[in-house]
Order: sequence, then structure tokens, then C-alpha cells
Amino acid sequence: MQGEFAFIEGIRRRAQQDAPDALDTSLVLGIGDDAAVWRPREGCESLITTDLLVEDVDFKIDYAVPAWLGHKVLAVSLSDIAAMGGRARFSLLSLGIPRTLGDEFWRDFFAGYFALADRLGVRLIGGDTSAAPERLVLDSIVIGECSRGRAVRRSRARVGDDVWVTGVVGGAHIGLSRLADGCRVTADVDDLTQRALRRHLKPEPPVEFGRRLGESGLAHSMIDVSDGLAQDLQHICVESEVSAEIDADRVPVAPEMQLITGDSSKGLLLALNGGEDFELLVTAATTSAGELIGLAGTCGVTLSRIGRIVDRGESCIYLTGPGYRRSFTPAGYEHFA
Amino acid sequence: MQGEFAFIEGIRRRAQQDAPDALDTSLVLGIGDDAAVWRPREGCESLITTDLLVEDVDFKIDYAVPAWLGHKVLAVSLSDIAAMGGRARFSLLSLGIPRTLGDEFWRDFFAGYFALADRLGVRLIGGDTSAAPERLVLDSIVIGECSRGRAVRRSRARVGDDVWVTGVVGGAHIGLSRLADGCRVTADVDDLTQRALRRHLKPEPPVEFGRRLGESGLAHSMIDVSDGLAQDLQHICVESEVSAEIDADRVPVAPEMQLITGDSSKGLLLALNGGEDFELLVTAATTSAGELIGLAGTCGVTLSRIGRIVDRGESCIYLTGPGYRRSFTPAGYEHFA
Repeated sequence: MQGEFAFIEGIRRRAQQDAPDALDTSLVLGIGDDAAVWRPREGCESLITTDLLVEDVDFKIDYAVPAWLGHKVLAVSLSDIAAMGGRARFSLLSLGIPRTLGDEFWRDFFAGYFALADRLGVRLIGGDTSAAPERLVLDSIVIGECSRGRAVRRSRARVGDDVWVTGVVGGAHIGLSRLADGCRVTADVDDLTQRALRRHLKPEPPVEFGRRLGESGLAHSMIDVSDGLAQDLQHICVESEVSAEIDADRVPVAPEMQLITGDSSKGLLLALNGGEDFELLVTAATTSAGELIGLAGTCGVTLSRIGRIVDRGESCIYLTGPGYRRSFTPAGYEHFA
Repeated sequence: MQGEFAFIEGIRRRAQQDAPDALDTSLVLGIGDDAAVWRPREGCESLITTDLLVEDVDFKIDYAVPAWLGHKVLAVSLSDIAAMGGRARFSLLSLGIPRTLGDEFWRDFFAGYFALADRLGVRLIGGDTSAAPERLVLDSIVIGECSRGRAVRRSRARVGDDVWVTGVVGGAHIGLSRLADGCRVTADVDDLTQRALRRHLKPEPPVEFGRRLGESGLAHSMIDVSDGLAQDLQHICVESEVSAEIDADRVPVAPEMQLITGDSSKGLLLALNGGEDFELLVTAATTSAGELIGLAGTCGVTLSRIGRIVDRGESCIYLTGPGYRRSFTPAGYEHFA
């Protein structure tokens, strides 16, 4: 591939060329200096998140669609900003680059990255490059903002809150499992398998809903579903020092689950533990239900009330259904396991 | 080593325990949520930089002193913020972790990281972890700030400016070359070799001088010496559309150069091309010379006037000495070469 300076210069030109929205007047200096510079908006707080994706650990080149990988590395960080109730503004990208990836890969990768960035008015303002002999390494950084005091934490769930989740869960896990079974993305096919692959490879987090929910002040706590619905709900419970009950029959299991199992108990388990759905998990007062549903409708997002925050036990998850209530131990993914 | 959540929890506790300086009241939310949140100070612009270090490309575990590696990964980003004339405030760290590194490595690594962070009032507020089977990967992110309009760019050097550099150059390259020759860090020894190793492994960028220089408004352009003095001066020249002359006998060559060569021409060449000195390269009006020297003295930094900005040629570097002036092509490091 081309040299390092030329590679960076190409990204820099592309980053400058996208049509910035009106917000972008706060960018003082983008790619090309020792640091990027921006002017935070008055009355706002700044947010920052970073996501490290390593080849063969977090994705495989074998089944990657380069444009979708570029999309996903940005999407996962946008999901974090949405989960704080913020709006993403700027991004940086650090790349550890193996020699095996050619110019064509990078052209497609950045086409996917910038398509998403442009759609949401996010501007790439920096990053770094190094070599990475064996495996591609991607560190995605996104800076966002929210009105002062409006950031939605994990730690403010209250006993009596309803628990809500956007979209459906488990689909990304099904996609990953289908990829492991040898399924690959096929253009112009739109069946359950392809939809499952797409959920894993090209997540579309409900960022507009997250931002507007933050601005509304309705959410008591929020997190994105990256480790698995049950695990992420437990993160809320631990940080908020509460417990939660999930109504088994209200969990919106992805329709692609039928590819794996017709057993609804097994499907529920996979949906509760499957990671990388990048949906939003929210707790809010029962009195806010109508407004929440209305806001979701406005944003074109489906929203399911799946349970409630309770005060029994020490940050436990309980699964309830007809005639039972049992404690549930999440089995989310751990990198060092 | 311990599990991922326990590992992160340990870092989180350590990050919360350091005594924050008064600035830190602007931190709203540190490690432990989907994103960190801070309140930018009124009248300030925000700065961000990221540096990706990959094992066997940017450092070797074989010769690393874990505490110094923790120091260096932060120092290189602090150097970028200083080179913008800013003050570092917050940091994030993404870690791609091989199984081969045990708890002892990480204890020492973070001791070095937090020693530097605490000394400069920088707070670790986020990051990410993944596995990285073969090689340790470190992505260091630092957020800084400067007064509105005070960020010092590479692109504002003016014809007639003096060119200044802090400290000495070439020492880090000598250290790297000694490491390649099998020299290793030895406690309680303070000879030229150990000093050279230290320059490479534990750089101390002049961050207070950079910050105060930015605040003063005296610098027309600034960059940190990471790719090599000549290469970095060329970056200034390209961005500012000027050229520069370097006075050969004014370049402050590191005293450790005598370990490699007694030939002053060869030593000069190595000093001009050697990377990772993390000194500051500054251009300023000749009339500012007295104030610059005074500011450097206040900060305990040596400062050498090594040349001037000229308008001949197209972003060229010229080397001048008794009876000669010749164009000089920098040979800085490129990761993809």
C-alpha cells in the first residue's frame, strides 16, 4: 500500500471534504497538527468514549465487509454517546495496519466510515497510525456533547422504574454464530440469515432516540446493549445498587432466532446473553411511559417494556414468567476469559 | 492474569484515588459508564490527541521497563498537547492485552502512568480493553485545553522567524541504538549509556514551557520533535508554505552522541534525523527572543536558537555552516516503509 504520510494525507483530504452541518462551526482545527482543536458549545458538557477492536478477537477479516467494518467501528462508539443521552460531534481513529491490507480495503473501509459519519454530522478530526504485523487494530474515539447536567448515567436507576429496551435483541449473536458456521454476506439477498449477518456486521444504534431521550430528562439510567442484555442490565444494577426483574415473555427476541432454535426458552437465553446488539436499555419512572413511547415513535424506534427495578437482593437479575421467578446469572462476553 | 472486569475495576479505583488539583472540579463522570463526561471551562478551547504504540513496532517488551512504558505512553501524548500550547487535563487509555503479561507488569506499568499523570494533574477518565494475542497494543488519548484562539499551529510560521528547540536532540535515537546493541537499563548506574536509554524509554517533554508559551502568544508555530528535528521542521515548512535554514553549529546535539561517533558531521546528521526526542520546536519573531529565553529559564528548560524561516524554495530545509549552505532532505521514520 501507499506510504504512511500519503495514507494520512488521503484521510485528511476526505475528512475535510464532507459537508459539515451548522454545528461544525465549532471545529477550530482538524487532522494535520499535533492535536485537534474545537470550541465546546456554551452550556454543554463534553462526552468521550473509545472502543478498541482487534482482528480475530473482535472481528475477522475473513468474513468482514470492509465498508461495514468502517461503519461498525464508528457505530459502536456512537452507541456509547447515545447511551449517555448525548450527540456525537467529532471522531478520531487509531489504526494499527498490517501490510496484507491493500488500498482497495482502505477505500471501502473509509467509504463505510464516512458514510455513517456524514449521515450523523460527525467530523473525523484526528487519529494515529502504526504498523501491526499480524492483525488489524482499530481504536475508535468519539467526542459528543449534551446539555449541562443531562448526561444519563448507569448509576441512577430507581426502585420502581420500568426497564425498556429498543429494537430486538439476540440478532447480532445469531449473525456471529452464522458467520462461524460459514455463512457469508451475499449482495441482493434479503433472507433471515442475511439479516442476522447484517445485525452483527453493520449495527445501526438508535442514536437519535438516545440523544432526544437525554435531552428530555425522562431516563433515570441508560446503557447500550454491548455485553448482552442481562449483563448490561446488571451493570446498571451494580452501579445503581438495585436489582431488576425481567418479564420473560416481554423480551423482544430477534426474529432471526428461529435460524438457531425453535425452543423459546433457549431462544430467550441466547437473546439475554448475546452481545453487540447496540440497542439502548433504559430505566424510567412508570409515569413517563407515554412520553417514552411517543418519543420512540417519533424517532422510528420500537420500544419494549421488559421489566422493572426492584430492591431485593444485591444487584441481581430475576427472570419472571407464568408461575416462576428465578435469579438469572448473566453470561456476557469477557475478553480475557 | 485477573479477569477483564476486575482488571478494569482496579484501574478505575486507582484513577479515582489520586488527589485531583483544583482544575478537576470540571470532571463530571470518569471511568465506569458508557462515556466520560466533563465540563469545559468557559473561554477555553478543547484539544485532543491520540498516540498508538504497538509492541515490536514502537517498543519492545524485551527491553521495556514497565513503569517507564506506562510513563512514556502518556508522555508522548502530553507532548502533543504541549506542542499546541495547551494544558493536559484528562486521559484515556485503550489496551490490547496479550496473555503473556502478568499482574506484576500491569502494577508497574500503571505506577509509571499514574506517577506522571498525578504530577501534572491529568486524570484518567476512560479507555477500553481487548485481547491482542501476539503483541501489546496501547492507544493513549489526552484531552487538553487552551485559552480561546491561543492554540499554536504548525501552519503559522512566518518568514523571518527564528527557529528554536528545547533541550537536546538525538539522545533518544542513541538510546534506541544502544538498546538494539543489547544494552539494558541498570538501576543505580548513571553513565552516558544509561542516560541515553532513559532519553528513549522515559522522555520528559517540556510541558510547562509549552503551556506557558501558548498562553503568552509569543510562538508563531510549534511542533514536538517526534519524527526527527529536520522532519518535524519540514512539517512546519509544508504547513506554513515556507522554508527553513538550520545553522549546523547551533543544533544542541545530545552529549550521549559520543557513544556512537566522534565525528561531528555524522553526529549532527543523526541528531537531525533521530526521532522521539519529544522536545519542542518553535518559531517566533526575532523581537521575542528575550521573552522566550526568559520563559524557558523560568520553566527550567534550555532553549537553542538553531535557525530561521526563509522564503526560498518550496518547503525545503537548508543546512548552513562556515562557507556552505546546502539543501537537506530529512530521513524521518515511516511506519509503513
